[in-house]
Amino acid sequence: MTRTAIVTAAIFALVVAGGILHFADANAVVIFVVTGAALGGVAWTIGIATESVGARYGPAVTGALQSTLGNLPELFIVLFALAAGELVVAQFAILGSLFANALLVLGLAVAVGALRSGDGIMRFAPRLPNDTATLLLLAVFIIALLGASDLAGDAASDNQVAISVVGAVLLLAVYCAWLFAYLRAEVRGERALEEPAHGVLPFSFSLGLLAGSGISAAFVSEWFVDAIDPAVEELGISKAFTGLVIVAIAGNAVENVVAVQLAAKQKYDLAVSVVKNSVVQIACFLWPVLILASLLFTQQLTFVVAPVFVGGLVLMALAVWQITGDGEAAFFEGAALVALYLVLGTIVWFE
Amino acid sequence: MTRTAIVTAAIFALVVAGGILHFADANAVVIFVVTGAALGGVAWTIGIATESVGARYGPAVTGALQSTLGNLPELFIVLFALAAGELVVAQFAILGSLFANALLVLGLAVAVGALRSGDGIMRFAPRLPNDTATLLLLAVFIIALLGASDLAGDAASDNQVAISVVGAVLLLAVYCAWLFAYLRAEVRGERALEEPAHGVLPFSFSLGLLAGSGISAAFVSEWFVDAIDPAVEELGISKAFTGLVIVAIAGNAVENVVAVQLAAKQKYDLAVSVVKNSVVQIACFLWPVLILASLLFTQQLTFVVAPVFVGGLVLMALAVWQITGDGEAAFFEGAALVALYLVLGTIVWFE
Amino acid sequence: MTRTAIVTAAIFALVVAGGILHFADANAVVIFVVTGAALGGVAWTIGIATESVGARYGPAVTGALQSTLGNLPELFIVLFALAAGELVVAQFAILGSLFANALLVLGLAVAVGALRSGDGIMRFAPRLPNDTATLLLLAVFIIALLGASDLAGDAASDNQVAISVVGAVLLLAVYCAWLFAYLRAEVRGERALEEPAHGVLPFSFSLGLLAGSGISAAFVSEWFVDAIDPAVEELGISKAFTGLVIVAIAGNAVENVVAVQLAAKQKYDLAVSVVKNSVVQIACFLWPVLILASLLFTQQLTFVVAPVFVGGLVLMALAVWQITGDGEAAFFEGAALVALYLVLGTIVWFE
Repeated sequence: MTRTAIVTAAIFALVVAGGILHFADANAVVIFVVTGAALGGVAWTIGIATESVGARYGPAVTGALQSTLGNLPELFIVLFALAAGELVVAQFAILGSLFANALLVLGLAVAVGALRSGDGIMRFAPRLPNDTATLLLLAVFIIALLGASDLAGDAASDNQVAISVVGAVLLLAVYCAWLFAYLRAEVRGERALEEPAHGVLPFSFSLGLLAGSGISAAFVSEWFVDAIDPAVEELGISKAFTGLVIVAIAGNAVENVVAVQLAAKQKYDLAVSVVKNSVVQIACFLWPVLILASLLFTQQLTFVVAPVFVGGLVLMALAVWQITGDGEAAFFEGAALVALYLVLGTIVWFE
Repeated sequence: MTRTAIVTAAIFALVVAGGILHFADANAVVIFVVTGAALGGVAWTIGIATESVGARYGPAVTGALQSTLGNLPELFIVLFALAAGELVVAQFAILGSLFANALLVLGLAVAVGALRSGDGIMRFAPRLPNDTATLLLLAVFIIALLGASDLAGDAASDNQVAISVVGAVLLLAVYCAWLFAYLRAEVRGERALEEPAHGVLPFSFSLGLLAGSGISAAFVSEWFVDAIDPAVEELGISKAFTGLVIVAIAGNAVENVVAVQLAAKQKYDLAVSVVKNSVVQIACFLWPVLILASLLFTQQLTFVVAPVFVGGLVLMALAVWQITGDGEAAFFEGAALVALYLVLGTIVWFE
Repeated sequence: MTRTAIVTAAIFALVVAGGILHFADANAVVIFVVTGAALGGVAWTIGIATESVGARYGPAVTGALQSTLGNLPELFIVLFALAAGELVVAQFAILGSLFANALLVLGLAVAVGALRSGDGIMRFAPRLPNDTATLLLLAVFIIALLGASDLAGDAASDNQVAISVVGAVLLLAVYCAWLFAYLRAEVRGERALEEPAHGVLPFSFSLGLLAGSGISAAFVSEWFVDAIDPAVEELGISKAFTGLVIVAIAGNAVENVVAVQLAAKQKYDLAVSVVKNSVVQIACFLWPVLILASLLFTQQLTFVVAPVFVGGLVLMALAVWQITGDGEAAFFEGAALVALYLVLGTIVWFE
């Protein structure tokens, strides 16, 4: 408990430091690093706070709460990026957290989990992986169809916003249909989240922590997005790499390190559930919602991405399905997911 | 029985009305609507007639008869379109019935079937879905390879007709190998088509109905194809949308509504069998046969389609495999298939 | 045993004949045919020699030895082609042996095996096919990502060599992780290679045969590569077809005919193991190693291939997964793999 308190204090110190640096017009790279770290930290405090709040309501509600609130930093980053007209950063932040979660975090969880199991195979219930494979394929297929139409320069590609909006609404509808059935089945089965991953905090403290973290996430995201452009220029890294790797890991993936910890404790079902729910929520909930929200901005977010990322998304969805669909995964399969992430990162590095 | 008689009479009245309008040079949109409805109707009467005829021979023969004759309207539309030099309409009619059956009809059947089942999961024997997934992938892969070669502007793309002919012959050979084994296994097992979906008609009446429907299909198809061009112009819809959505639904999908009805009655295996057989027959039998037949016309049908449809076909085949390959499907999976169809329709609408 | 001796003698006679023709500056087509046949023969003698050597060490070591040494001719061809600046031949030789093994040889093995089984279904343990599907997908996905980046003319495509090297190192790492776990499990289980496919030769003779075959493979490969250019010109076949079909079958696929023989003897697991190991080794070991080795040459081998082959590889990996992933395959599924190979061959013929 004390360790949690110390870490939490350190995180809020980082948030405050980020704010001071921002208003003091400090060096962009410094702001970028500090606010990036603060973002990752805030994502983590949101995680443990929701877990403790959820301890009152059972695992199904906790899971739903956790994935929704856990994506808050992500949501804020994209909204501020859209408001600042940084469409590329907004889109790469979403793409990046999909890749980081589905390939890097899931891959690490599988690799660690398989090493810890007696016979080198990590086993888990195949239902959720298959459900999420379906949802991910649906999202990815909509993106691929728009990408193909864009590549061919069809008349349809002039209507990307309209088509993306239709796709977003359909995706949300299917996601809700799934979530409804999933939560109902979970509540009925009360498949145990036997003990929270981090230990339970007092209820009122958790609520306060949640509020504080949420507000911090909003502020830190704005400072972070503000610092990206000058920082990237100074560092000489490509914007694609920044968005796809750094922003993604800071804004979203850090939180999911818990999945790797769960796998190390042989809580395989829970580990898979954390990553999978997160991936599906970004693809089928966050992205569509942001597309609809972006109608209020001057620049619209769409499902249209560059060919290499269309390819990456389709291949990611297939790899995740192939590796986790049978409810078994070996060390080398986790390594394969991580390798795929590193290749993507390398390509983007040279972009 | 009386209801069937009334509906049948109404359908033939539509056929006659279509003919009168055609020869009276009526407004194209009116002809288009009337003959389109007549086509859907004729597809339906062919369906119930073959079912009754088949009641004499057992389910395996009935299935084979039904899918073959059920595709007659489709066949006539494409032939008349080819004869009229309407290559785009011909190709879109085939593509459209693949998409309409594999995504829309199958999706609706799964959604309805899952809702009707006790636990929200529609269950069926996985053998047929897996077989048809293989066949569909083979067809789609030939199309994708030709598409990739066409996209790259290779020398090979100058020889699309020759390559398509080779592909068509190979596809037919594999399809026949599958059909032979499938029918033999079916006849041996006599897996029950316990009762026909529509009730049995007298044998001689069925034969007459079949002959009448077949001849009507031929005439109505010609009038329908004739009316497409002026009707599309008057309505201001894109030709792609007309071919891919309207013609497909009129010419082929209506017939398969029976699959949705079967799913509603919890005859899951039969429902899956009707859609799956239909999809595979279009991809692996009708399309190849039409490619070979088109060698007699001035314009040749090939397997080369626009990139967005290549993408659509590959993704369709993968989605159908992923969703039905395990012999289980939930409501949201049916909804996902329907959503994919709607996104494709939206893209084509703007084409 | 005597038959083996006669065949072996004939093969070495071919090797000698190839050398004489080469140094006598004979007609290129003649050299091409003779050295091509000699290559196929040498691949075969390497196969039986390693099998006999391996009889001392058990099946796991034999398998590893066999796939590694069996790919020697392939390795020499690519190295000599690289040394001669024939980048296209080098790449097509690798691509070709992937296609020839994964589609043609596997397809034939499945077709023959299914025909020989009582109920028309060839059954085998699904673990290895699933493992190799994962590895194959990983390799193919790296290739597809580079292909997509190349197609889009991104900045990343200027760094194909660097990205390919990163991909090669990652692929090798994942392959080693898999091989380590696989061999350990095999050694523990000693899943029987009950009797070698060809009968056991005396140990010292086997070692001599191995050495002789390896040296012959090196020489014959050089003469063969030398003869390709003039022979292709004289014959008027496209270079793509030569590399992808003829070189591939001579250099690699002949050896794997043993898989078809094993399937005919209903040794289904062994048959699948021979083809699968071979395919994975080419994709995840030979290709990466050659990419790294090519850094020493003036022209570098990469993972970047033309779009139609990117498509072909992705579809191949999916088809092989779909057909063998469930541990069952019917005749028509083998036929489908062969058909896919023939379509690819046809496209390349017109290239």
